[in-house]
Amino acid sequence: MQPIYLDYNATTPVDPLVLEAMLPWLRQGFGNPSSDHSYGHDAKQAVAKARAQVAACIHAQPEEIIFTGSATEANNLALLGLARCLGAPSRLLISGIEHPAVSQPARHLAEQGWELQELAVDGQGLLDLTAARTQIQPPLALVSVMLANNEIGSIQPLAELAEWVHQAGALLHVDAAQALGKIAVDVAALGADLLSLAGHKCYAPKGVGALYVRQGIELGSIQFGAGHERGLRPGTENVAYIVGLGMAAELAQRQLGVEQERLRDLRDRLHQRLGQAIPGLELNGPPQQRLPNTLNLSFPGVSGAELLAAAPEVAASTGSACHAADAAVSGVLAAMGASPQRARGAVRLSLGRYSTADEIDQAAAALIRAWQACQAS
Amino acid sequence: MQPIYLDYNATTPVDPLVLEAMLPWLRQGFGNPSSDHSYGHDAKQAVAKARAQVAACIHAQPEEIIFTGSATEANNLALLGLARCLGAPSRLLISGIEHPAVSQPARHLAEQGWELQELAVDGQGLLDLTAARTQIQPPLALVSVMLANNEIGSIQPLAELAEWVHQAGALLHVDAAQALGKIAVDVAALGADLLSLAGHKCYAPKGVGALYVRQGIELGSIQFGAGHERGLRPGTENVAYIVGLGMAAELAQRQLGVEQERLRDLRDRLHQRLGQAIPGLELNGPPQQRLPNTLNLSFPGVSGAELLAAAPEVAASTGSACHAADAAVSGVLAAMGASPQRARGAVRLSLGRYSTADEIDQAAAALIRAWQACQAS
Repeated sequence: MQPIYLDYNATTPVDPLVLEAMLPWLRQGFGNPSSDHSYGHDAKQAVAKARAQVAACIHAQPEEIIFTGSATEANNLALLGLARCLGAPSRLLISGIEHPAVSQPARHLAEQGWELQELAVDGQGLLDLTAARTQIQPPLALVSVMLANNEIGSIQPLAELAEWVHQAGALLHVDAAQALGKIAVDVAALGADLLSLAGHKCYAPKGVGALYVRQGIELGSIQFGAGHERGLRPGTENVAYIVGLGMAAELAQRQLGVEQERLRDLRDRLHQRLGQAIPGLELNGPPQQRLPNTLNLSFPGVSGAELLAAAPEVAASTGSACHAADAAVSGVLAAMGASPQRARGAVRLSLGRYSTADEIDQAAAALIRAWQACQAS
Repeated sequence: MQPIYLDYNATTPVDPLVLEAMLPWLRQGFGNPSSDHSYGHDAKQAVAKARAQVAACIHAQPEEIIFTGSATEANNLALLGLARCLGAPSRLLISGIEHPAVSQPARHLAEQGWELQELAVDGQGLLDLTAARTQIQPPLALVSVMLANNEIGSIQPLAELAEWVHQAGALLHVDAAQALGKIAVDVAALGADLLSLAGHKCYAPKGVGALYVRQGIELGSIQFGAGHERGLRPGTENVAYIVGLGMAAELAQRQLGVEQERLRDLRDRLHQRLGQAIPGLELNGPPQQRLPNTLNLSFPGVSGAELLAAAPEVAASTGSACHAADAAVSGVLAAMGASPQRARGAVRLSLGRYSTADEIDQAAAALIRAWQACQAS
């Protein structure tokens, strides 16, 4: 029997409706969208429909959507593409809890002469707005802040930030990889100029993403080829996955209200059961301003890795999947000022579309048993 | 009824066995290969198996394979990644008939101060080796030549070239996107240091590629993130498509001998029928040193676009799919010194795994009818 999956922030299953939408494009609908015959025309139309679906989901225009091979690529295109367009190095702000897919391209720009500064977060992983207010001043080209954090689920107050960013004559890039399908993502309400999406965090497959580029904003290319996606992402379009992302976006939009409430209830039930049995259990992240599916807890007296090893019935993680290989403490928790001990005990439990109350109860029991066993040993 | 597909060089259908191999990874096997639980471990193993399959197909080691989102990305990683690693601009040679996925990153390097020169081809689209010999001299960092051309199918004599390139202290990059599955691709025999593959030219889906990086060769990153694929291609792995590429590589290797002969016979049958009915029909590309599936013909007295419009029973193209949108003459034929009239009449007919003798006969008849109709009008 497969363990109970509570690692939806690492990756989601593909929704069967998404797969169903994709399959014709992996079978008879195999044309190259650039080909001038019916196979090509059909594929081109499918891409256009998906572009409209993704755009509608985030309240953008279809021509503002650039499909990419991942959210990482979308983030790279946003940061490095803007830098290439500007030519000369400028100043860049990112939050202290960005995913490596933002912090690493930012660091690369710093190596190229950009001035890179971090926006601090508080003990709950929320931006320190007072500090941010003083940092968001010209000269400034770009501010990149994730909408929702992958490890602790904190949701940033971006609308207020966006106003300051625009007053400073800069652009706001938002990594919304973890947000789509979990909370509303509205580019206008957020004030985002650039916004990245990940297919595999919202029930489309791994290997597709998108970058929203507000009309009028110019980016330079970071890859060069035959001019697909307005020259910003050359390479024959991944028609099937693009169709999948379109359908995933439509489903996300359709189910959002109901699903948010259902997930919050299940998550809080899990939190409650664990809290009742484990004295000293601590929540990492904001109690309220948080993704409805995300529960990052520090277990007392054990490391997260030990606890999960003792609970093979549950598939979860100690932090970002991208860091599973190294045993170092989460950079997100460190940025929040968590003690080494608290960071060491952290486990991320992230729920999703297929999580059930029964699973949650079984997972709670398994984690409690595991914690007790670790305490006894 | 769908038209007869003779545009396999634009893109191939996904082989049903490839799709079958992929589907479990779009259903229950959805884990993130970086996750430290059974979902993740299964996915990681699947990627490792595919890496071995791709490596075996081109006689490389698994650790020499970097999976990418496309051959375009593989080409960009080869050229721009080497440039990034070298730091200072150097000298680069490409053939005059490269795909934009090579010629455009090369042009970008030229804008960054690299000295870029083209290796000329003869009237059949084969490298002028005498001229090349004098150009392949230090200072030289990289030579990038496609193994087989996408429009005319010419197969370059790379082994000889590779020797000169290495004597000059440079590296050889080979864009083998159009070659895999059509002819043998052996990195050692070719003397390739870097070699790009495309999933969707060999019966895997659009949206996956690979770069072979010979052991000991260092590249700089062109995208930055969480360190996947040895830091050279960050972003959660597209497990399903990677598995698909692995299976496609295995099938390519298995079927190569038989399929080469079958395709050559069918292609020559098509050529013969057309030649018998259409006086003045001209073959573009070498008669012998050519992909067994590719037939690029110049029809007299019509444009390729007119001819194809008059033959809706056949899905083919006037050149690269990537250029379908612009009406300009093929750069490949121009580089071969074809007259404007000959280039204007060019049609690329490319066969593949599902082409049948019956289809070929129908396509020949349709093209002959269309040509005659164009002549009469």
